[in-house]
Amino acid sequence: MKTKNYLLLFAVLLTTVVFAQQPKIKIQTIAPGVIKLSMGTPDKYSPYTFCSEKPREEAMQQLSDKSLPFDLKDVVVQKNSRGVQIRIPLNEEEQLYGFGMQIGTFEQRGLRKRPIVNDNPSNIGYTHAPQPFYVSTAGYGVLVNTSRYVTFLCGTNQDLSQQKPVIKEQEKLKFSTQDLYANQSQSKMSMWIDVPSAEGVEVFFFLGETLRESVQRYNLFSGGGAMPPLWGLGVKYRVKGDFNQDEVLKMGSYFREHQIPCDVLGLEPGWHTKAYSCSYVWSDKFPRSQEMIEGLKGMNFKVNLWEHAYVNPAAPFYKDLEKMAGSFLVWNGLVPDFVNPKAAAIFADYHEKNLVDKGIASFKLDECDNSNIMDAKSTWGFPDMTTFPSGIDGEQMHQLFGSLYARTLAHIYKKKNQRTYFDYRSSNVFTSSLPAVLYSDIYGHNDYISMISTASFGGLLWSPELRDAASELDFIRRMQTMLMAPQAVVNSWYLKNVPWFQLNRELNNADVKHVNADKLEELVRNLFRERMSLIPYIYSAFADYYDKGLPPFRPLIMDNPKDKRVRSIANQFMIGQSMMAAPTTKDSTTRVVYFPEGNWYDYNSLKQYIGGKSYMIEIPMDKLPLFVKEGSIVPVATPLNFVDEHSVFEITCKVFGNGSTPFTLFEDDGVTYDFQQGGFNKVVLSVANGKGIVERKGSFKGIRYNIKDWNFIK
Amino acid sequence: MKTKNYLLLFAVLLTTVVFAQQPKIKIQTIAPGVIKLSMGTPDKYSPYTFCSEKPREEAMQQLSDKSLPFDLKDVVVQKNSRGVQIRIPLNEEEQLYGFGMQIGTFEQRGLRKRPIVNDNPSNIGYTHAPQPFYVSTAGYGVLVNTSRYVTFLCGTNQDLSQQKPVIKEQEKLKFSTQDLYANQSQSKMSMWIDVPSAEGVEVFFFLGETLRESVQRYNLFSGGGAMPPLWGLGVKYRVKGDFNQDEVLKMGSYFREHQIPCDVLGLEPGWHTKAYSCSYVWSDKFPRSQEMIEGLKGMNFKVNLWEHAYVNPAAPFYKDLEKMAGSFLVWNGLVPDFVNPKAAAIFADYHEKNLVDKGIASFKLDECDNSNIMDAKSTWGFPDMTTFPSGIDGEQMHQLFGSLYARTLAHIYKKKNQRTYFDYRSSNVFTSSLPAVLYSDIYGHNDYISMISTASFGGLLWSPELRDAASELDFIRRMQTMLMAPQAVVNSWYLKNVPWFQLNRELNNADVKHVNADKLEELVRNLFRERMSLIPYIYSAFADYYDKGLPPFRPLIMDNPKDKRVRSIANQFMIGQSMMAAPTTKDSTTRVVYFPEGNWYDYNSLKQYIGGKSYMIEIPMDKLPLFVKEGSIVPVATPLNFVDEHSVFEITCKVFGNGSTPFTLFEDDGVTYDFQQGGFNKVVLSVANGKGIVERKGSFKGIRYNIKDWNFIK
Repeated sequence: MKTKNYLLLFAVLLTTVVFAQQPKIKIQTIAPGVIKLSMGTPDKYSPYTFCSEKPREEAMQQLSDKSLPFDLKDVVVQKNSRGVQIRIPLNEEEQLYGFGMQIGTFEQRGLRKRPIVNDNPSNIGYTHAPQPFYVSTAGYGVLVNTSRYVTFLCGTNQDLSQQKPVIKEQEKLKFSTQDLYANQSQSKMSMWIDVPSAEGVEVFFFLGETLRESVQRYNLFSGGGAMPPLWGLGVKYRVKGDFNQDEVLKMGSYFREHQIPCDVLGLEPGWHTKAYSCSYVWSDKFPRSQEMIEGLKGMNFKVNLWEHAYVNPAAPFYKDLEKMAGSFLVWNGLVPDFVNPKAAAIFADYHEKNLVDKGIASFKLDECDNSNIMDAKSTWGFPDMTTFPSGIDGEQMHQLFGSLYARTLAHIYKKKNQRTYFDYRSSNVFTSSLPAVLYSDIYGHNDYISMISTASFGGLLWSPELRDAASELDFIRRMQTMLMAPQAVVNSWYLKNVPWFQLNRELNNADVKHVNADKLEELVRNLFRERMSLIPYIYSAFADYYDKGLPPFRPLIMDNPKDKRVRSIANQFMIGQSMMAAPTTKDSTTRVVYFPEGNWYDYNSLKQYIGGKSYMIEIPMDKLPLFVKEGSIVPVATPLNFVDEHSVFEITCKVFGNGSTPFTLFEDDGVTYDFQQGGFNKVVLSVANGKGIVERKGSFKGIRYNIKDWNFIK
Repeated sequence: MKTKNYLLLFAVLLTTVVFAQQPKIKIQTIAPGVIKLSMGTPDKYSPYTFCSEKPREEAMQQLSDKSLPFDLKDVVVQKNSRGVQIRIPLNEEEQLYGFGMQIGTFEQRGLRKRPIVNDNPSNIGYTHAPQPFYVSTAGYGVLVNTSRYVTFLCGTNQDLSQQKPVIKEQEKLKFSTQDLYANQSQSKMSMWIDVPSAEGVEVFFFLGETLRESVQRYNLFSGGGAMPPLWGLGVKYRVKGDFNQDEVLKMGSYFREHQIPCDVLGLEPGWHTKAYSCSYVWSDKFPRSQEMIEGLKGMNFKVNLWEHAYVNPAAPFYKDLEKMAGSFLVWNGLVPDFVNPKAAAIFADYHEKNLVDKGIASFKLDECDNSNIMDAKSTWGFPDMTTFPSGIDGEQMHQLFGSLYARTLAHIYKKKNQRTYFDYRSSNVFTSSLPAVLYSDIYGHNDYISMISTASFGGLLWSPELRDAASELDFIRRMQTMLMAPQAVVNSWYLKNVPWFQLNRELNNADVKHVNADKLEELVRNLFRERMSLIPYIYSAFADYYDKGLPPFRPLIMDNPKDKRVRSIANQFMIGQSMMAAPTTKDSTTRVVYFPEGNWYDYNSLKQYIGGKSYMIEIPMDKLPLFVKEGSIVPVATPLNFVDEHSVFEITCKVFGNGSTPFTLFEDDGVTYDFQQGGFNKVVLSVANGKGIVERKGSFKGIRYNIKDWNFIK
């Protein structure tokens, strides 16, 4: 090689080194109001890679075109041998929310958050549904498109380059540990983001006039919100894990005979020949499984099956997957490399032919998170160091596993033009269109309430299921919360009889009926009927989720961007257009309810409240603690015991105040995706001259709602 | 460029790519019985980079030359974009210990451990002193020479390549969560180590006949164990944080007047003009600080000063350090880049001239760990994404910060040929020669006991300090533990009076003397005197630490490698050659004590116990719960109230049984490093024909021990 060539080689290498150190930042608009900043070589398997839905651009164009409150030139992105670091300016006033479904913290400013998937959520950010995504009251959202374990310093630390330290006057010595450790730096005006192991990064900015709009934009970018089947909004009941098929049928009969609304029966591990890991084959407890499915169908039940994704050697498709699985096993089972479309197809095809085609309406996808990363003894999950044939590693796979798993199975139903509604235990970003609700083994009731709100910042749905209860009061309070959530489910996987028969586990399984059982059953029936009466209202809220990206269940901050008093409220939330829920726990019969601007009605007592104030309110036991904004029209249905393709809801329109805000019922077949091709009606309810008006527009031929009455409440 | 050259360039690049994927493994012996396996490009700032001591090769050669129980060819090292993964075979029988000072777990087999520095220890491995180092009962130690956050899967997970899953018979369905999550895989014969972000790795293997020998070898490789000054083994008392110099002197007088042994008075934050961050300048509470130091010296006290390493703008050397600090501040202060010798020199020079030269005998190095990485609200530490001018990053700096800080200040004393004994709140590997004990803000008494053992697996010393107590009983039990540890310290940083004056904090600070105060003081005096009587014995144990690498305080597993019953015992430990401590907590007045092989004596009651058995034993309040192995000679000193350069210990040799095991007292000036140049005597105590024999060998001119009596106990 000649000298010149050496020099050329040297120049090439030098350029490469410099480039590798600080690659150029690229900025592009990738959808209306969505800006992508990229630098270096981002991970091959970023979350957006797996978003199968297209951005809903038309709907996104309806949102405001307000620009970012900071200059993108002030965003710092730097790369070193440890990974990529990002700085985004913060202003004095803004508050931050998000990072997926979170517990323990709500307002995230001033905190360090690490959204990492974990089966044991904690305030640092470990959660079933971690999201490297936050939204600001200043009207924007920031998403780091990575599957790595990212740390967000939400205005917690002082950066030497941003501000010089100053000598303060002598302060009084502090002697409580709390005082000593209080974060004393004078100003925290930066969001710092730490992306380890990365060679590059993509950051998505979602614009919005308000926080709510940035959430809407994110959801629309992800394909819009999920549209559950109508039956998915009824009540689900999960039977004891070792029930045989006769016991399942008997439980179905109980609900029908006792006229207790129920749409779905869920089967737990015992239906498999092997459950940890799974065989996906009916066990000998179900010798005539098809007969049972038909029997339940005859009673108008949908059947949901529990499983997880770890494939036992007894699974018929085990051999086919062996070369497309992770390097570590879980419970002796393969971890499918869902990144590989072939692996996903093997898994899905088996499910389609053997379960979906046979009438299984939905699945519960368990264990797709990770064993508790804070506990030395909890090691069932595949290690972060796991390698997969596709090239994704265990860390990335953990973050994505739940969503990839759910996408794999949801795809079967989409293909069949059949809607479904899963339970799953892990999610990530860009999943708002997945028809699936999150659940958890943790059980703090206050956490359960706040997760309805925290989930909504990132297009997630949370199902605060009812299992145990410490007392009748606890049982009823938890039931009220469960019935005001995206999914209403009683999970009796270790109870032979329904929990209201006997709350004590041992006595329940010994068939010892509690002395109050009949009274409690009556209460349960009435509360379930309350939920059923709201299905048209909630279904329409989901239509707004699909169409506008507006979360059907959401914290007050989304609807009241200028009211600083709602910023910290995580125990009240909006349902749909005009209802506000204010659940309480066993610890109190009353609670403080804050009413945002405007006037409000108690949905049950019709008592009125003035907005901008807090009231101490007694929370009833036999009703759902709901409040309605003045001017609203709420369509209330005569409760059905189940919803099927032929159900027609008899509607009473309750008009609170002058009814100045019209309400739009979403009407379609309730079970297929035809609505995506225009197969729906909008039934607009409004009031003029003191009279109710119904306008039905659209091409759907059926009638789902029969507006039978108007009830004017002044 | 010609075609040939292009081809050459292509070949070079190709080789580079392949090499980058799986670099060759190199194996070399780097010291007697220490094998280094290396692969790829290890981190520039690995822990061994900062070990200033040379391996004690001569002493290492005395240890056995038994080889590893596995073939190094069976060690797998692989590299991918996420980092390096290592597999080391495990045999069926071996148990593992280590990972630094650990709480919550002792036997580490079957656990996932992540030794990461944290101010809030937890069982996953977060600790003040994390070590990527473990030792095995099969007689070897493994150290990953990295400052990254490493995960060790200690035989927890099944690897597809190592074993094929098998179909098991139908198992009974399990319905407790615990059962469901139980780790069910059939065999866990691998240690898997996950080193994220690494481009290469060095693994050190420490050979040994037993676990104990591998620990000895590791300590000797690190320069041998620390040799504290004699006064460091007496009692330290830390005064209230806001005391002024008169109050400090008054506290000194109290100890002397009341004849309560005490060697060191420690000053807490109030001595600085600024404490969070630190100014290192005497505050106006100490207008004549030098006078106070001299006054305390006159009363034979050593002075210890609290500080941390975050440099306030008010520190005189702030400006000098500004360009040699991390990119983030802590409490408004600079984080010195201790990796840079210039930064360390600026920090040390100031300390030397202004504090050490003025008579300060030692320091307490606080806050050198990290704010709780499990809590969203705890954010005082510098972030992992911090960059330092030297090139080290925040993650690596966190792991090393405590040890670099301690080395920086210890170096001052070494240079002055003056021994010291620090308190510090963070350490890492290769620190056995550092004269420093670890402490913590956590306060579980059972944890405090077990940490004496867990620290010793990695050449660390733990100081279970006494602060609060829930009751008199709790106070005494904690005091007993504290007095049987590497350092005996009462930390009264928030108490005006000594705690035994009044345990209740508010009443203590209001000078309200407790009705039992005098009685309790008498008890304290006697217990302190017990400690003082054991100083020669403990000092000699430290000589073995220095000379043979044998931890002076260590779990029973080290002395009884074949006894499987001691494997899980973390609440008894050996002190020196022949004493066993069995502390208890406030929860019981009796405890089960297991006696390993041989016969044993109760040190106080002289009652005898047969080895290989457990006994339920009543633990006294007014004595230290110690037991002695039959055949031992224990030198017991007449208690002094303090130790200085002129102290002579009046020794009674207690002979338990036949006295067949000689005891060697280590005799030197007790304050300098002259012993490293041979300036010491060995005073060998033995028994022949029923009579005690004293043999003094060595070149030290002074007399530290006066053997005045022999006490034969049969």
